Amino acid sequence: MNILDIIENKKNAKDLSKEEIEFFVNNYTNGEITDYQAAALIMAICINGMTQNEILDLTFAMANSGDVLDLSDISNNIVDKHSTGGVGDKITLIVMPIIASLGIPVAKMSGRGLGITGGTLDKLESIPGYNINLSVEEFKKNIKDIGISLIGQTLNLAPADRKIYALRDTISCTNSIPLIASSIMSKKIASGANSIVLDVTCGKGAFMSNKTEARKLAKMMNLIGKWAKRKTVCVLTNMDEPLGHSVGNSLEIIETVEALKGNMSKDVEEVVLNIAIQIMNLSGIYSVSNNRKKVLEVIKNGKAYEKFKELVVRQGGDVSYIENPEKFEKAPVITPIIAEKDGYVEKLDAYKIGKAGEELGIGRQKEDDVIDYRVGMTFNKKIGDAVKKGEIIAYVHANSPEKSIECVEKIKKAYKIGNKKISKKNIIEII
Amino acid sequence: MNILDIIENKKNAKDLSKEEIEFFVNNYTNGEITDYQAAALIMAICINGMTQNEILDLTFAMANSGDVLDLSDISNNIVDKHSTGGVGDKITLIVMPIIASLGIPVAKMSGRGLGITGGTLDKLESIPGYNINLSVEEFKKNIKDIGISLIGQTLNLAPADRKIYALRDTISCTNSIPLIASSIMSKKIASGANSIVLDVTCGKGAFMSNKTEARKLAKMMNLIGKWAKRKTVCVLTNMDEPLGHSVGNSLEIIETVEALKGNMSKDVEEVVLNIAIQIMNLSGIYSVSNNRKKVLEVIKNGKAYEKFKELVVRQGGDVSYIENPEKFEKAPVITPIIAEKDGYVEKLDAYKIGKAGEELGIGRQKEDDVIDYRVGMTFNKKIGDAVKKGEIIAYVHANSPEKSIECVEKIKKAYKIGNKKISKKNIIEII
Repeated sequence: MNILDIIENKKNAKDLSKEEIEFFVNNYTNGEITDYQAAALIMAICINGMTQNEILDLTFAMANSGDVLDLSDISNNIVDKHSTGGVGDKITLIVMPIIASLGIPVAKMSGRGLGITGGTLDKLESIPGYNINLSVEEFKKNIKDIGISLIGQTLNLAPADRKIYALRDTISCTNSIPLIASSIMSKKIASGANSIVLDVTCGKGAFMSNKTEARKLAKMMNLIGKWAKRKTVCVLTNMDEPLGHSVGNSLEIIETVEALKGNMSKDVEEVVLNIAIQIMNLSGIYSVSNNRKKVLEVIKNGKAYEKFKELVVRQGGDVSYIENPEKFEKAPVITPIIAEKDGYVEKLDAYKIGKAGEELGIGRQKEDDVIDYRVGMTFNKKIGDAVKKGEIIAYVHANSPEKSIECVEKIKKAYKIGNKKISKKNIIEII
Repeated sequence: MNILDIIENKKNAKDLSKEEIEFFVNNYTNGEITDYQAAALIMAICINGMTQNEILDLTFAMANSGDVLDLSDISNNIVDKHSTGGVGDKITLIVMPIIASLGIPVAKMSGRGLGITGGTLDKLESIPGYNINLSVEEFKKNIKDIGISLIGQTLNLAPADRKIYALRDTISCTNSIPLIASSIMSKKIASGANSIVLDVTCGKGAFMSNKTEARKLAKMMNLIGKWAKRKTVCVLTNMDEPLGHSVGNSLEIIETVEALKGNMSKDVEEVVLNIAIQIMNLSGIYSVSNNRKKVLEVIKNGKAYEKFKELVVRQGGDVSYIENPEKFEKAPVITPIIAEKDGYVEKLDAYKIGKAGEELGIGRQKEDDVIDYRVGMTFNKKIGDAVKKGEIIAYVHANSPEKSIECVEKIKKAYKIGNKKISKKNIIEII
C-alpha cells in the first residue's frame, strides 16, 4: 500500500478502504506522509466526498491515533458538550457550571479560536492566573473533588486530527461535512465521554451556512456516535447574528458571570437551556421531566455561579475578577455606534462581525498571532430590536484609534436597519 | 488576492482569472506559496478541470516564469520535437540526427526519465563522456557549427513548470490534460522553438491510455500553439507495447546506432518517418512531397549516422562506443525468457514492462535514485509475431541474479501468447 495509490483512488472518486484510511492517518501522524501529499488527499476528499463507512473509518483511525482517555474511575456517564463554533459563542462557559452544580460530572477539553470563531480557552485565559494546562491526574482530581474541570487539548488526544485540522485551515478545506464530522467525533471519542451533546451552529457566522447542510452534519455525527456506542444528540442553533450581547475574550467572561447570576439575553438563555436539558437527559441522573425548571433553579439560587467561581479558584484563576468584573482591564478606545435612522434591526451579520473581531485582535489569523483579551464589541441592539435615530446600538472596544475607526465602519455594514420587525428563534431543532 | 481564495474557487469548480493564475505561478515559483497549498490547488484542478482560457493563462504564466530563449540569431524556423513519454521511446535520438543531416537546425532540450517512462538525457549519458550541461553560448555555437545540439534542461526555462511537475509526480496528478498540455507547451515556448511536432503517446505505457483522451490533449496543445503563434502538429502514436526491441539506457543507444545504420524495427521506423516528415513540413525548407524518400536517403547514405557521431564528438562523448557498440559494458546477468507454448504474441504490456524496468534500475522512482546504464530488456518477439515453444522471446539484462529472477517473472506476465495473429499500426493519426 502506498499514499500515491490512495490519492489516485480518491481523486477518481473511489471509496477508500479501512486499511487505506488507517495507512494515511497513521503515516501522516508519524511524518512519513508529507504535508503536500496529505493536502492533495484532503482536497480530493473535500471535492469527491466520503461514504458513511469511510467517515466512520476516518473518525476511528483519528481517535485511535493517540491516547484514549479513560474516565471510568470517575463516572460511567460523563457527558461532553461541543459546539461547531460561532461568533460570541460562550455557551460552554455558562452551561458547564450549571451542569456541574446539578451533580453531573463535567470533564471538558476546549479548543482555541481560529478564524472568525472564538475559542473557550482564549476566553478562560483572559481570567488572570487561570491554568488550562493540567495533567490527566490533576484534571481527574478536580472532577472528583468539585465536579468540574475545563482545560485545553494538552493531552495527546487524536493527534492526527490536530495535524489534519491545522492543514485544512491553510488549504481552504474547512467546510467539508466528512472532515468536520470526523474531526469533532474523533476528539470526543478520544476524550472519554460516554454521551455527547453537539451544538451544531448554522448561519452566516458558522461553517454550515444553511439548514440542509447543518442537518446532514448532525445526522452524520449522530451516526458516528451510534457506532462508537456514545449517546449523541445534536442541537441545531442559529448563528446568523452573534450570540448574546458581547464578542471578545474578557467581555464574554463578564457576560458569562452576568448570565450565571441570572441576567441572560434571550438568545443565550434559549441555547443554554436547550443544551443543558439535553445533557441532563443523557446523564442518567435526571428523568426527562422538569429539567428546565431545575436549570433555572440552580441559576436562581446561585449554585451555578458558585460552581463557576469554584472552578476558577481550583484552576488558579483570580476569583476577584469574577466577583468584581469591573477589575478586567478595559480596552483603551471604546467607541459607541449610533443609529442613523429609526426602524428595526433586520440583520446583524455574524460573519462580518467575526471578521471585524479578527482585525481587532480577538482571535488569531495565524496560529502564532497574539490575542488582546480586552478588545471586542458589545451590542445593545440585535435582530428584531426597535431602534431610534441617535441611539447607541453597539460599542467597539479597540486597542488603537485606527483599529476602532476601521471596526466601526465594518460593524455599521454588518447592521441592517429597516422597517420590518423580524421575529427570531435560536433553536432550529433537536436531532 | 490570496491563495486561500484561489484554492476555494477551484475547489468549487469556478474558473480562475488570469490574475489568479499568475499570482499562483509567480508566488509558488518564488516560494511564497507552500507546497501543500500548491498541492491542494493542483488536485482541485485535476478533479474540476480547466477551461481553454485557464489553460492558456497557465501555460503563458509558466513559460514566462524564467528565461525565454531567443534563437533567432540561428534561424527563424527552429523546429522542436517532444514526446509525451513512453517505454522504449528512443525516437528523439534517431530522428534528430536525421533532421540535422537534412539541413534543418536541431536545438533540443530533453528531460530525464521519471516513473516508467525513459528519458533521452539518461540514455545520452550512458555514452561515456557525453556532456548534457552546456551554456546557452555553447549550445548555440554547436547548432551553428554542426546543425545540432542535444542538452538537458539546465537553463532557467519555465522554472514554475519544473516545480509543479515535480510536485504532480508526488501527489498522483500526472495524468491531467490541462496540466500535461500547459507543462509541455510552456517548456516549448520558453525554449525558443518556432514550430513544434508533438508525439502524443497513447496506450498502456503512456499517460493517455485511450484515444479519446489523447486526441483531447493533442487538440489542446494545438490550440495553445496557435495562440503562441507556433506552428504545431501532433502525431498520435501507439504505446501499448514498448517501442522497438530494447528498453534500457545503453541498450537503447545501441538500438539507435543500428537504426541510424538502417536496421530499424518496423514500429520504430513508422514513428521515425512520420515525425521526421512532419518536422520537414514545418521547417520551411522542404515542400510536402517526397519527404519520406529524403529521410530514407540520409539513412541509406550514412549521413544521419555521421551526424549522430558528430553530435557525440562535439558534446565530449567517446565516439568509439558508437562505432563499436560492443564496447558498452554489459549487465552482469543476462537471462533468456523462453516461450512456453506455440502461438502468437497477443499482448506485451508496456506498463508492466515499464514497471519491471524501474525495478531493474533503468529509471528513477525518486529523483535522487542512481541509474544503472547497463540494465534493461531486449525483445525478440513483439505483438503479432509468431512464437514456437522453446524459442527465446526476450532477454533480461540485470545487475544481480535476484533482480533478474524477479524481472523474468514480471516479463512473463507482460506477455500474452495466444492463437490470434494481431495486426498492429503504430501511427494512430496526425492532428
